[in-house]
Amino acid sequence: MNHEELNQLLKPKSIAVIGASATPGKIGYTVMENLKESGYKGPVYPINPTAPEILGVKCYPSVSDVPGTIDSAVMCVPVKLVNSMAEECGKKGVKGLIVITSGFSEVGRKDLEDELVAIARKYKMRVLGPNIVGTLSNSDKMNASFAPFLPLDGKATLITQSGALLIAMDAATYTRRVGFDKMVSIGNMCDVDIADIIDWLNDDEKTTCVSLYIEGLKDGRKFIKSGRTSKKPIIALKSGVSAHGAAAAASHTGSLAGAAKVYGSAFKQAGIVQASDLDNLFDRTLALSLMPPLKGENLLIITNGGGVGVLATDAAERYGIPMKFAPKDVQEELKKHMPEFGSAKNPVDMTGMAGTEWYYETVRFAIAHPWVDGLIVLYCETAMTNPLEIAKGIKKALDEAGMKDKPVTVSYVGGEKSAAAMAWLVENGIPAYGAPDLAVNAMAALREYKLLRETAKEPAFKTNEKARKTAMQVISAARADGRNALTEIEAKQVFQAYGLPVTSTELAKTEDEAVTLAKKIGFPVVMKIVSPEILHKSDAGGVKVNIKDEAAAREAFNTIMKNAKAYNADAHIHGIAVQEMAPWGTETILGSVNDPSFGPTMMFGLGGIFVEVLKDVTFRVAPVDKPQALDMFSEIRGAPILAGVRGEAPRDRNAMADTVEKYSSMIVDLEDEISESDANPVLVYEEGKGIKVVDARIILKKK
Amino acid sequence: MNHEELNQLLKPKSIAVIGASATPGKIGYTVMENLKESGYKGPVYPINPTAPEILGVKCYPSVSDVPGTIDSAVMCVPVKLVNSMAEECGKKGVKGLIVITSGFSEVGRKDLEDELVAIARKYKMRVLGPNIVGTLSNSDKMNASFAPFLPLDGKATLITQSGALLIAMDAATYTRRVGFDKMVSIGNMCDVDIADIIDWLNDDEKTTCVSLYIEGLKDGRKFIKSGRTSKKPIIALKSGVSAHGAAAAASHTGSLAGAAKVYGSAFKQAGIVQASDLDNLFDRTLALSLMPPLKGENLLIITNGGGVGVLATDAAERYGIPMKFAPKDVQEELKKHMPEFGSAKNPVDMTGMAGTEWYYETVRFAIAHPWVDGLIVLYCETAMTNPLEIAKGIKKALDEAGMKDKPVTVSYVGGEKSAAAMAWLVENGIPAYGAPDLAVNAMAALREYKLLRETAKEPAFKTNEKARKTAMQVISAARADGRNALTEIEAKQVFQAYGLPVTSTELAKTEDEAVTLAKKIGFPVVMKIVSPEILHKSDAGGVKVNIKDEAAAREAFNTIMKNAKAYNADAHIHGIAVQEMAPWGTETILGSVNDPSFGPTMMFGLGGIFVEVLKDVTFRVAPVDKPQALDMFSEIRGAPILAGVRGEAPRDRNAMADTVEKYSSMIVDLEDEISESDANPVLVYEEGKGIKVVDARIILKKK
Repeated sequence: MNHEELNQLLKPKSIAVIGASATPGKIGYTVMENLKESGYKGPVYPINPTAPEILGVKCYPSVSDVPGTIDSAVMCVPVKLVNSMAEECGKKGVKGLIVITSGFSEVGRKDLEDELVAIARKYKMRVLGPNIVGTLSNSDKMNASFAPFLPLDGKATLITQSGALLIAMDAATYTRRVGFDKMVSIGNMCDVDIADIIDWLNDDEKTTCVSLYIEGLKDGRKFIKSGRTSKKPIIALKSGVSAHGAAAAASHTGSLAGAAKVYGSAFKQAGIVQASDLDNLFDRTLALSLMPPLKGENLLIITNGGGVGVLATDAAERYGIPMKFAPKDVQEELKKHMPEFGSAKNPVDMTGMAGTEWYYETVRFAIAHPWVDGLIVLYCETAMTNPLEIAKGIKKALDEAGMKDKPVTVSYVGGEKSAAAMAWLVENGIPAYGAPDLAVNAMAALREYKLLRETAKEPAFKTNEKARKTAMQVISAARADGRNALTEIEAKQVFQAYGLPVTSTELAKTEDEAVTLAKKIGFPVVMKIVSPEILHKSDAGGVKVNIKDEAAAREAFNTIMKNAKAYNADAHIHGIAVQEMAPWGTETILGSVNDPSFGPTMMFGLGGIFVEVLKDVTFRVAPVDKPQALDMFSEIRGAPILAGVRGEAPRDRNAMADTVEKYSSMIVDLEDEISESDANPVLVYEEGKGIKVVDARIILKKK
Repeated sequence: MNHEELNQLLKPKSIAVIGASATPGKIGYTVMENLKESGYKGPVYPINPTAPEILGVKCYPSVSDVPGTIDSAVMCVPVKLVNSMAEECGKKGVKGLIVITSGFSEVGRKDLEDELVAIARKYKMRVLGPNIVGTLSNSDKMNASFAPFLPLDGKATLITQSGALLIAMDAATYTRRVGFDKMVSIGNMCDVDIADIIDWLNDDEKTTCVSLYIEGLKDGRKFIKSGRTSKKPIIALKSGVSAHGAAAAASHTGSLAGAAKVYGSAFKQAGIVQASDLDNLFDRTLALSLMPPLKGENLLIITNGGGVGVLATDAAERYGIPMKFAPKDVQEELKKHMPEFGSAKNPVDMTGMAGTEWYYETVRFAIAHPWVDGLIVLYCETAMTNPLEIAKGIKKALDEAGMKDKPVTVSYVGGEKSAAAMAWLVENGIPAYGAPDLAVNAMAALREYKLLRETAKEPAFKTNEKARKTAMQVISAARADGRNALTEIEAKQVFQAYGLPVTSTELAKTEDEAVTLAKKIGFPVVMKIVSPEILHKSDAGGVKVNIKDEAAAREAFNTIMKNAKAYNADAHIHGIAVQEMAPWGTETILGSVNDPSFGPTMMFGLGGIFVEVLKDVTFRVAPVDKPQALDMFSEIRGAPILAGVRGEAPRDRNAMADTVEKYSSMIVDLEDEISESDANPVLVYEEGKGIKVVDARIILKKK
């Protein structure tokens, strides 16, 4: 249903251009001209109350006057007319609105946008935009935009939040020779968003790769889901990742730009490959649209120049691709196609003596060899060889070998002749780049795609009704008390309800109660002030550790009370928490935030210096299952500490992963209640000995 | 003198081509053809025993038959003839040999290369090569190489260790539009090396930037010195920085490729900007050859597209350039050249409505404003604007403002028209790039150059004769004992001679001596086994800490002795070190290696987990002075720990820097003796309270 609606919107059989103009320079004229120039086959109905015809096409005063049916209406009218026109379209039975007009939420007029959506809903219309350039499709010969021409034909589809970049990238497809079938300007995403288009493209046989330029997402979870279920590789460039840049992005699109780390985690969870910049988006799109993923770890590099071979090897390390020497039988065969001073290891250096024949022979052999999972072919222009002939030799070898499931990328370093040879390669379906580093980076994208598809799975999640009920009682009591911050005792009650292994902590209101609780818990204990007004307990002299007997417990109780009153005479003191003293373990920290785009999001890191100095933390959009949690532990810099260093036993990562899973369920269950939370420190013991959450904090959402 | 010799070698007034050939395809033919095609004005003497003339130029059977003087001889003869020809050249009075021929040290025939150098020395000739492509110069209209043509004319000079890359890059200068005046293939560097050429280029008015492709250096210290004293910016791409790549580089050139970290430090000490890959070498060369350094921190970005503005801001953060909002007066003026919904902050977003006039006005104003230190101009191709006109507007604004000391880089995202406009900009001296990221990276190079020039100073170094004498006594005694490893006591004696604050440590041979020493040093003490055969003292049960009184000292002595004998019955036990027990401090580590290219090199890092898990260490080629040492402390990831975290006082970085300076002097003084060494841990106390070297290790060079 959704699919058919988007077909009508984005592959319309007929189009009305509302606000079509006979005046060159006006957008309503440009769109008409573009539809004509691009060779669009369906009927086009220009809507203009005064012009009899535009570019030879009969005009209609309003959509209601159009004799046939209209799949999509492209809106170019001033903002004040959009909603009344939308209403007319609805009445006419138009299926899709492509709203080029700007002046909506991006300038603070969300009210107008909401009204537009309401009209669309009423008439079951879908809306692209507003505030867009339009949409372009080579396979539909349709340029329904004010971008000047269809992009270079190819197999990728670009979805972009920047209209200006769409226009510039459209032109750049010709100079960079990266082809696209479609380019979609997504704008304010008042209805159809990036996720919808990703879903829709699953059944689009013309698209083999989805390329995204993202400034900020509204519904991050929907986006992740569309990525996870996509049948095609997706590559994304997220702009606005710097502190300074984030502010600029916000002002630019009206969308909220999330933190780089959260977006990075979300892309990973969605199985989406990332681009580091605009060049990289083009380069990786080319490889992902033309080549299959790199399915194994054995990459062979063939070169005619030692220098570029070494640069490629450096790049492989930089992009995380392991390099291995080729096995003996591979080396022996390759040795036949090089002089004595060549090298058959890896990189395979055929030396500057390599001509077309050697390239053909080595590529033909290597790609068919079972050891080889992927191939990078490098060429350094020489006076003795013909770059184009070598390109043809490579193509012939690949065609003859017929190994369609192994990726190949190529790099040529050279001048005009090399540029022409690279263009020929790309036209013939082989991604080629002007520097060895780029060919390796493209291969890295094909490898990342494979690895991400293996891990980007929907985590199992069940709401925990019993825990939720307990937690809501604690939360309601705090809210009734007029508080947004839970006390440590309350936060631990919530944690405990969800099965987190918190240290036993109970509240003593009197000295005698403290002694009774300490005996029950077992000495030594820790005692801490419990007061909503005293958040920095240590600073207030409100914490005593290693309390070994009854006398010490009595003294601690009285000292803490005295200190707390001295610190803040007005503080409401709930009492003193008497707490099990956890044995020493590796300090870690768990936490959660409510990201504006992605909702409840987990953080994990090593505690102490690691979090404070190195900011060595990692995120996942919740819920997080155990395998994903283990993945988090392995991606921090301090990962070896959990694996066990300096002769220490490995830490109990399994228990920690279990806790991350439970913690993440908690923040999803309590999404409407918890604003942020942390468990800090969480002490992790050696394998099999579990973990302990020593301190807990929950801040509630304001209601 | 050196300068004049290199002039004769590299800008010869007359050239002999030894091994000139009349057969197309042979190198001796190609060189003749290239000299002719490039328009070389001086006399060329082909040397060939049989041909009467080549390409219309009269041939001579040998150099001795040439009537005039010969500045340089280009050698293309087989390797077996090179040295006898060199001898003839020497007799003839030739000044320089450009030895294209390969088959020398790169294939294990260092003997032939040594012989060549000996002949050159005898006749006071300088040698370029062997194993090179040759040398090319636009300003001398000289292509004395087998590369097919002179590069695109420009202001940079390339020196490369890869001949194949020279040929490929030569062709690529035309497609990438990065111009070079000279390209020098440096080959095996048997005589003239990269440092010599850098020095020589100081007086070459045609060269404004030196661009290096380096596989491995022989004399790293000479190289650093040439960088430090260079009057021109230098940009270097070091290949072979991966573990796998290093091996490939070594086999490729016969030079030893040092570790990435050591090269990185050496470049920094030499004031040399680094390139991350081949593209980046071209891109940064363009900016450094055309623009002055970025002298301050106020960078303004002007754009017609929010998207590219945000991408540029992200890139600025990535490359370490701080972004600030422009001051109010700048914003007010810029506001005049944009619509209401534009932004005058920074990036200055004139929006897609910006045409040539607005670009001209904003650039004209911004570059002349005292707040602006550098300018990045971004342009996103639109249908309404003319890319070339905008380029001309930018150029006109810059010319009129006349601010030659402020750098400007430009980025165009677009198609053919943008490509043509960028080419026009580059031809007119303004570096232009096809993506915003690249324009920012180029600006970062101009900033790095400025910062590096401030810090790349020759550190003061004085040999410490007295310390050296003491150290040599200790070392000689150990050598006499047949040992390469000093004991802790010996190593500390050497450290102490150089003024390093080691913990008081003395050797006790008996239980009673141990007690006497412990009393002298003051309880508590540490006791450790001293035996050349027991390097891992703790593993052997050979260390006892916190010994508080005489009884404990006696017990410790006997236990350690017993443990040591049980651990290794054959070990020679010198006795037991009785040592001051240093109070707790921040653990750091100092160490030294003898790098094959750079010689004695210092390492600094935080101890414990930081060095073991995070490898958070930094290097400097010794000697290192105090300011450089302080720089080392600030560049590790754990730097905040030395600055004081979690409410702790800052650590005594001053005392630490003093020790680094002394340590580095020691390893230079004892360069011929010490192979590697470390002080681990070195405990650093709070400011004013100094440091303590707790353990010491010195491994001697084998003699």
